[in-house]
Amino acid sequence: MSAQTVALFRGLARADTVPFANRGLQYGDGVFETMRVHCGEVPLWPRHVARLREGAARLGIAMPEPAFVEARIAELMAGVEAGVLKLLLTRGDGGRGYAPPADAMPVWMLARHPLPQPQAALRLHVCQMRLAIQPALAGIKHCNRLEQVLARAEAERAGCDEGLVRDADGAPVCATSANVLVRRDGRWWTPPVARCGVAGVLRGWLLDAGLVAEAALSMEDVLSAEGLALCNAVRGILPVISLGARSWAVPAALADLQARLAMAYPMFTSSGTIP
Amino acid sequence: MSAQTVALFRGLARADTVPFANRGLQYGDGVFETMRVHCGEVPLWPRHVARLREGAARLGIAMPEPAFVEARIAELMAGVEAGVLKLLLTRGDGGRGYAPPADAMPVWMLARHPLPQPQAALRLHVCQMRLAIQPALAGIKHCNRLEQVLARAEAERAGCDEGLVRDADGAPVCATSANVLVRRDGRWWTPPVARCGVAGVLRGWLLDAGLVAEAALSMEDVLSAEGLALCNAVRGILPVISLGARSWAVPAALADLQARLAMAYPMFTSSGTIP
Repeated sequence: MSAQTVALFRGLARADTVPFANRGLQYGDGVFETMRVHCGEVPLWPRHVARLREGAARLGIAMPEPAFVEARIAELMAGVEAGVLKLLLTRGDGGRGYAPPADAMPVWMLARHPLPQPQAALRLHVCQMRLAIQPALAGIKHCNRLEQVLARAEAERAGCDEGLVRDADGAPVCATSANVLVRRDGRWWTPPVARCGVAGVLRGWLLDAGLVAEAALSMEDVLSAEGLALCNAVRGILPVISLGARSWAVPAALADLQARLAMAYPMFTSSGTIP
Repeated sequence: MSAQTVALFRGLARADTVPFANRGLQYGDGVFETMRVHCGEVPLWPRHVARLREGAARLGIAMPEPAFVEARIAELMAGVEAGVLKLLLTRGDGGRGYAPPADAMPVWMLARHPLPQPQAALRLHVCQMRLAIQPALAGIKHCNRLEQVLARAEAERAGCDEGLVRDADGAPVCATSANVLVRRDGRWWTPPVARCGVAGVLRGWLLDAGLVAEAALSMEDVLSAEGLALCNAVRGILPVISLGARSWAVPAALADLQARLAMAYPMFTSSGTIP
């Protein structure tokens, strides 16, 4: 999806370009959020900004004033019925090699994208690319995403919609751009993301709402599940109909989960299989 | 060090700015080389371009025509007595999320920096930040460098010149921007970089010249060594005089190693402790 509108800022001032010295460009030294826009607003904003703040704190990146960011988002989203908003926050420019400058002024960007094409049900590839175990970077949505880029390329080569990615020990963690929900024993489960993977905003809502619980799962647990789904903050909850050679019918329990999400966030009403 | 001159290209055409959609900026989806310039040339260029090509192939990034790159480097370096050249190669712009566009036109940059201040002997911090084990990305100089950014920040906070970084299993691997040379049993050793770390260009030359050998080392092996040094393609070989609480005299064997390097590459004559 190509960006329709981009706004670039250095701290609280508008900027024109991203310089070569930007540390996001040099080292992936930043964090980002990809958010669904509904009727000019970002309904999941409090969760997105909480994760952004956690990521910035973990990396020692200064946060631009949230009220200022919110005002710029409101401007950019005014009148937008449905869309996607990306916020990218980099540490800023320069510094001596890897050492972050003590007084770096963050450079950040907003971009508006159209809503992606709806997808009904997903075919998943079992990625060979593994996620390295790195607790210092796990959970946050930082800009070091080569593992996801390579895993997604693999899923595309396999002709699949997404890829299930395992950690270095072989445990399933997530998809390349979504968290995974696994139906077992009449409940929904999702793997922990304390060692690798991203703590998805919608995953967080589902956990807090008590609709999904966290559990370490093996590949065997996933393959013998009653059903699978993916969730993310742009597409909501989508059923998985195959993983490699294994296929599933959409579990009846999924419609209930989707309905509960749609009650809390009406923007997700038309996602997935709900009529 | 701030860039003096920057040249930006989209494939073989000159470009003006790095767009928001650049995948280097979005995901660290690129590779880079940092090279020492001597009398208008880059003496270690064949080794740098070999690693760049290896990294681009591993990530599936198209390489711009090497002859064209070399011509642009020659222009930018003409008349430069001594300096540093950085080449950053990104996959290019856009694509649907993490999926790399099949026909992405690489966007790449050259930047000229002044030579850094000479350093005589280095004090090293033992970093708490570990390197995740990721064979798919090990060895190459990709742009996912948050581990190095955080490790280097830690070394700076400790008031040290550099940091020794260990892998997730606790084995010493490298410094944040240099490889480590360990003197034991009358020989120089350097840890493997097949699971994490960067295969330094100068490390490669030292191995090929038979002056250093590869060996897995424990933290105890390093602390009980006869001496330590760091090497990289900008600074050459520099002695380490302390690692945390442990300190060393500069081993006599280091001057010999530095002299052999200076014979092959005279640009390194004044680095380190050689008079």
